[in-house]
Amino acid sequence: MKIAVLPGDGIGPEIVAEAVNVLNALGESFTLEEAPVGGAGYEAKGHPLPDSTLDLAKQADAILFGAVGDWKYDSLERALRPEQAILGLRKHLSLFANFRPAILYKELASASSLKPEVVSGLDILIVRELNGDIYFGQPRGVRAAPDGPFAGAKEGFDTMRYSEPEVQRIAHVAFQAAQKRNRKVTSVDKSNVLETSQLWRDTMIEVAKQYPDVELSHMYVDNAAMQLVKAPKAFDVVVTGNMFGDILSDQAAMLTGSIGMLPSASLDKSNKGLYEPSHGSAPDIAGKGIANPLATILSAAMMLRYSLGKAEQADRVENAVKAVLAQGLRTADIWSEGTTKVGTQQMGAAVVAAL
Amino acid sequence: MKIAVLPGDGIGPEIVAEAVNVLNALGESFTLEEAPVGGAGYEAKGHPLPDSTLDLAKQADAILFGAVGDWKYDSLERALRPEQAILGLRKHLSLFANFRPAILYKELASASSLKPEVVSGLDILIVRELNGDIYFGQPRGVRAAPDGPFAGAKEGFDTMRYSEPEVQRIAHVAFQAAQKRNRKVTSVDKSNVLETSQLWRDTMIEVAKQYPDVELSHMYVDNAAMQLVKAPKAFDVVVTGNMFGDILSDQAAMLTGSIGMLPSASLDKSNKGLYEPSHGSAPDIAGKGIANPLATILSAAMMLRYSLGKAEQADRVENAVKAVLAQGLRTADIWSEGTTKVGTQQMGAAVVAAL
Ligand SMILES: CC(C)[C@H](C(=O)O)[C@@H](O)C(=O)O
Ligand SMILES: CC(C)[C@H](C(=O)O)[C@@H](O)C(=O)O
Repeated sequence: MKIAVLPGDGIGPEIVAEAVNVLNALGESFTLEEAPVGGAGYEAKGHPLPDSTLDLAKQADAILFGAVGDWKYDSLERALRPEQAILGLRKHLSLFANFRPAILYKELASASSLKPEVVSGLDILIVRELNGDIYFGQPRGVRAAPDGPFAGAKEGFDTMRYSEPEVQRIAHVAFQAAQKRNRKVTSVDKSNVLETSQLWRDTMIEVAKQYPDVELSHMYVDNAAMQLVKAPKAFDVVVTGNMFGDILSDQAAMLTGSIGMLPSASLDKSNKGLYEPSHGSAPDIAGKGIANPLATILSAAMMLRYSLGKAEQADRVENAVKAVLAQGLRTADIWSEGTTKVGTQQMGAAVVAAL
Repeated sequence: MKIAVLPGDGIGPEIVAEAVNVLNALGESFTLEEAPVGGAGYEAKGHPLPDSTLDLAKQADAILFGAVGDWKYDSLERALRPEQAILGLRKHLSLFANFRPAILYKELASASSLKPEVVSGLDILIVRELNGDIYFGQPRGVRAAPDGPFAGAKEGFDTMRYSEPEVQRIAHVAFQAAQKRNRKVTSVDKSNVLETSQLWRDTMIEVAKQYPDVELSHMYVDNAAMQLVKAPKAFDVVVTGNMFGDILSDQAAMLTGSIGMLPSASLDKSNKGLYEPSHGSAPDIAGKGIANPLATILSAAMMLRYSLGKAEQADRVENAVKAVLAQGLRTADIWSEGTTKVGTQQMGAAVVAAL
């Protein structure tokens, strides 16, 4: 089995290196092949998603992704900026189903900005559609406004779109995920305002009929943002579109106060997937050896489970992570009084040792 | 001076009645005229925003609005649902500037789901554009997908749009608000993905040149949703579009845990405005006499200040609200051990008494 390893920018290379060490320690015969992506892709080949990197990603059974982005690329035109790499991979590989768990490890409860009773034991799963919506909808651009009170003025425009089959496939993913959890799906939309959302909601209701064992409810996105603050534990699976999912999954991740711990998976219809930490490239701490590699290591565990059919190995890795937390080891982002501060490499090595 | 009073649905009539009592107690010669809106408009005249109500709102110097919406209208077609009333008023009256303060009263710090040190003293202002964006952008609808991998399938679509003059006018509002506060504006967009956002950001940067005393920074909407959870006090004024503002203003309001306390104002270019509580119509507690009227009373105070040129009367009302809180009076939503639980009318009467 072949794994494409795309470390990217900022802390990406450091944290991916530790995840690679963990994978290598499992005693499986994976082939790992590395390629530049994001700013690193631009430096090496003039494009954030070089053809050779995309080809590798297409051939591979799974992709381990670090993070992309650095302020130094801010002045490039949008098509050459690092973020285009991740958008391009999602689209070209039809990775439409994004799994973003927001889990609060009991050892890290104090890291949250929320009261312990509100978040302790938090375990929710955001299922975000990743191939459609206003992220990719055509037409889009800058033009003279064709109508309205400011007709003729320069305007920017984008198109939000969702078709029935696109909503159906993510609905199935969400309902099936809920069947393995607490059998509750909250579909988030803005159907009181948006046509796209009305179609989204109608389609969710239709698909739900095939999952009588799962309870479907609907929430407007503004209310969802409130309920995530007020009572996040009331959620089980949240399913939503690309744009609302971008916002709510980050909000949910931050509820834990330990986003350095949160993995993510982006899957296609055959469970080929891209795995990346939920956090970003953190260029401010890049190269200092202090970044938390656990989200990336846990992303590798998700890869073992979803794309590589190695559920037992996934369990081993997840248990090793729990063990190092229980040992009191903490990187700076999750450190608190009474625990032992370690660097990126030490943390990675501790997970390998715990395997 | 004429005030249009639009109580609406659910708890709307109860809480507006208390705000009206407060206005009447000020000894000013306001003319207050009431009209049905939302579900009440539909019941009375077959439309959530009857012509006669819209006419009254147009003639008035300011509008005091309760809340609209009730589950019993959920099955109506979208154009007849209560929410259309508020969208219609915003659009027909060109109320483009929405002020949504998120303030945590020190007496109510324990109501928040966040740790006291994270939110105590919170005082941020969300300035949300209210006339543009995907809320109103044409074209929109349901059709057969014209292109893409699902061409031919049924799809819903909406258009996000912002023109330069629309962004300019809300930018000026935000910068001028910041000049009266801590001189910091955070503009929230998704310019790494959206063309609309790129124009938004470029325009913000241009307008900022006219306000050298205000510090402008930019944040992606997903990051803003995270930072509001992590360190909300770092914000002063947040300016953003209609859609992102809908989400972030509700999220920010809920940080306080006392959304029953939060007023809002929606202004046109001459400071004519609509004033409404940030919370909704709460049909589950309607008619029980337990709703918190303070957000509506504080909305009336904003009306006195912004639209009616009565800053001193606004201060009087705001001080009266602080006084009743200091007296320990609390409606059920903000009640805690050791304070005195009161109903809607008692709370309103206490504010009148404190005037
Ligand atoms: C980098 C950016 C384009 C991306 C997104 O908006 O999807 C990121 O925020 C994410 O959530 O993975
Ligand atoms: C009722 C609804 C249409 C409205 C909106 O989305 O603007 C509400 O959520 C608000 O924020 O005032």
